[in-house]
Amino acid sequence: MGLNLKAIIKIMGAILTILGISMIPSVIVSLIYDEYDVAIAFIKLLIPIVIIGILIIRKIDVKRNKLKIREGFLVVALTWLTASILGAFPFILTGSIDNFINAFFESTSGFTTTGATILNNVEILPKGLLFWRSFSQWLGAMGILIFAISLLPALGISGQRMAKAETPGPTLNKLVPRMSDSAKILYFIYIIFTIVAFLLFVAKVNTFDAIILAFSSVASGGLTNYNNGIAHFNSLYIESILFIFTLLVCVNFTLYYNIIRGNLRDFFSDRELRAFIGILITAIILIATNLWITNTYDSLGESIRYSVFQSSSFITTTGHFATDFNQWPSFSKMILFLLMLIGACSSSTGGGIKVIRVLILFKLIQRGFYKRLHPRAVVPIKIQDKAVPTESVTGITSYLYLYIFIFTLSTLVLSFENIDLLTIFSTVAAIINNVGTGLDIIGPMGSFDGFSAFSKLYLSILMLVGRLELFTIVILFTPSFWNPDR
Amino acid sequence: MGLNLKAIIKIMGAILTILGISMIPSVIVSLIYDEYDVAIAFIKLLIPIVIIGILIIRKIDVKRNKLKIREGFLVVALTWLTASILGAFPFILTGSIDNFINAFFESTSGFTTTGATILNNVEILPKGLLFWRSFSQWLGAMGILIFAISLLPALGISGQRMAKAETPGPTLNKLVPRMSDSAKILYFIYIIFTIVAFLLFVAKVNTFDAIILAFSSVASGGLTNYNNGIAHFNSLYIESILFIFTLLVCVNFTLYYNIIRGNLRDFFSDRELRAFIGILITAIILIATNLWITNTYDSLGESIRYSVFQSSSFITTTGHFATDFNQWPSFSKMILFLLMLIGACSSSTGGGIKVIRVLILFKLIQRGFYKRLHPRAVVPIKIQDKAVPTESVTGITSYLYLYIFIFTLSTLVLSFENIDLLTIFSTVAAIINNVGTGLDIIGPMGSFDGFSAFSKLYLSILMLVGRLELFTIVILFTPSFWNPDR
Repeated sequence: MGLNLKAIIKIMGAILTILGISMIPSVIVSLIYDEYDVAIAFIKLLIPIVIIGILIIRKIDVKRNKLKIREGFLVVALTWLTASILGAFPFILTGSIDNFINAFFESTSGFTTTGATILNNVEILPKGLLFWRSFSQWLGAMGILIFAISLLPALGISGQRMAKAETPGPTLNKLVPRMSDSAKILYFIYIIFTIVAFLLFVAKVNTFDAIILAFSSVASGGLTNYNNGIAHFNSLYIESILFIFTLLVCVNFTLYYNIIRGNLRDFFSDRELRAFIGILITAIILIATNLWITNTYDSLGESIRYSVFQSSSFITTTGHFATDFNQWPSFSKMILFLLMLIGACSSSTGGGIKVIRVLILFKLIQRGFYKRLHPRAVVPIKIQDKAVPTESVTGITSYLYLYIFIFTLSTLVLSFENIDLLTIFSTVAAIINNVGTGLDIIGPMGSFDGFSAFSKLYLSILMLVGRLELFTIVILFTPSFWNPDR
Repeated sequence: MGLNLKAIIKIMGAILTILGISMIPSVIVSLIYDEYDVAIAFIKLLIPIVIIGILIIRKIDVKRNKLKIREGFLVVALTWLTASILGAFPFILTGSIDNFINAFFESTSGFTTTGATILNNVEILPKGLLFWRSFSQWLGAMGILIFAISLLPALGISGQRMAKAETPGPTLNKLVPRMSDSAKILYFIYIIFTIVAFLLFVAKVNTFDAIILAFSSVASGGLTNYNNGIAHFNSLYIESILFIFTLLVCVNFTLYYNIIRGNLRDFFSDRELRAFIGILITAIILIATNLWITNTYDSLGESIRYSVFQSSSFITTTGHFATDFNQWPSFSKMILFLLMLIGACSSSTGGGIKVIRVLILFKLIQRGFYKRLHPRAVVPIKIQDKAVPTESVTGITSYLYLYIFIFTLSTLVLSFENIDLLTIFSTVAAIINNVGTGLDIIGPMGSFDGFSAFSKLYLSILMLVGRLELFTIVILFTPSFWNPDR
């Protein structure tokens, strides 16, 4: 095998420690709201986790510090699986969810920032647990950032100007606390966004709601503490703040680094960002017009309001809902469906296929036409007048094909449920793109509770697959991963 | 512009003449069944068409005999459009269909071998017209064979051993009657299949039904003369003959050429054919098991019978139906849906994405995994131990992306109908893959009559787009086609 097992175990020790510590805020929240049972449950869980984690870090002596690509994939997959499994225990220990698969689904949904829920009534959950649910999204999105800068270059995603000097594989010192400066800056931006969002929310709602809203928006998560989601507030102010922050975090974070360095031009000339905004504006106009013409709402104002909110909620893969879009006309629903698939910008907290890949897809179609007429021409794919390396194009191509394959396979797996095919398509789209809300059964008024245990487990894994850019998880199931010397 | 207009017009003259002459059999059928009105309608139509055609051929003097690629695309597109438009007139002139768009839809459905219908009751049509409807499929499939050997190499499909020495673009002498020997052999095989199929059918049903069945099966068409389709016969014998012949014509025709030359090994070692059969067998087993377990039919025998028939009907893109598969469980329906998309082998009369492209897609995913672990490795895509040229891979990649794009666009266009999204997906799949039957509204018991005139026109064009491997039609809408020197 030749895996650097010691390094992998040591990193997992660090992950355990971080996960244990990350439960402390939930203990505090539980205590504030006099939920002593919940606080004790968290404490009983975090203490052994932290102890085991610290023991591993102390005892394991790593000789080879660098991880190979293969090991990098394994570490990332293990990290997310560990987080999702451990994150499920608070639901079980407090008795809020009575079977482990449901708890695992809920926990994975949090860490992957999907925001899907199997709970039909979230309002009866203790505050400490509601906090944990939201906080796991925030942690998950944070984790994504570090993985984005450390692992994504190896996955064939470019546009990582900050990370371009890094080696293609993740190295140990990027996954343990001594992370590189670039990652620190990203975290700094992320935390600033969270704080500002919280302050803007708290001007209108109570502190607890503001925290939940802030976490769920800057993480592109979508979990809320009300059964009616954002419709509970029925507030244009709240919707506007959500709109602004869910969009801000769906911009490539390296562009903010450019702003900090005073390079505003790079920000506004970024082709992916422009396409992202262009798609969103087009969708908003089309949906608003469609809603207005079909008299779905009483006024043009409301048509625009809900068009803006739902369009951005879906393209950012947040999955918030402020209205029952299942009642919308087919055309508007179809656009929402497409926005889900497209998703956010690369190296952001959002999910989906990512705008840059969609852009490349269009460029490849364009080149296809040209090549039909000029079979011998050599035409590079260009973004912002720069040729995209063939390796990146190939990487994106195989990503898209794998996406199609996994999507197809997942629809087949889910069709064992014997529910209508549209719900199946919509469920797969909502889960693999980490949106969490979809059409029909899994729409605003529904939950994932009706699915079988097998489907829930499959969907949980699918969330991880989607969140980690497909290859990271799926590669573990390929024989060549385990036989690298073949 | 620099288009060789004279050559294009002259070819269209030949096409007109052929189309006119091809209406003569319908006249004869009409006379046999004492349908004098119908016979007169056909005669009134074909005489001016043939005269105009011959006049064009005689009067136009072509200097440059070869066509450029661009001109080839234009000729192919114009040919199919002309055939579809002229083919609509018999429906109008006999008063069988009262508006032109409906007639155009029906005619295009025939020539593209889609087999979709806007007629709610086909049994009241005069025999002459039923014959014309089926015969147009037969002609269309014949056209596809010549299209396959002349144009497909330029579209990046390999496996055309017979045509490999030909130039990548279509040349004049391949589209007018002096066609190459290779095309003659293909036609010969096609006609033999038709005759044998007819003889086997006529052993069980009347002559007219046998003709209709023979045309609709060897053309992968799917139009029948009964409202209940193949269920009308309720005959295992008829279903078996259909099964055999729809499969035979979905094999790459160049493989038959190899058999004629005594090269049996090439036939059975063909990777695309093997994959095609493998996919079909897997689908049959999965569906039969699913139908049996869910007690959809009374016996295992019936489960197998309908699984075999519908699976082959969908992967061959014929679209025949012998049972109401809308009542099947979701899993079976999902498999049928996937079979529609995959389609037949390249250079056959079947439609769909084509098995070879699906094979390449899987190879690209496989390479994607390998490249994630070995970023610097150079890995060629191989089929049957031979490296597929990069140009072909690129061609297939852009085809698949264009397919996704057109599919997506079409779902948006159809969603103006405000029908449920599943019917929309299913309709687009049934039309772009030239299957003609789908799930829900457009299933066995339905028709396309309910769609708006706009949608019917759009779907007619979509049949042509699908039938001509996407690029041939869509390229006419790109600016660079009309400004080649840009």
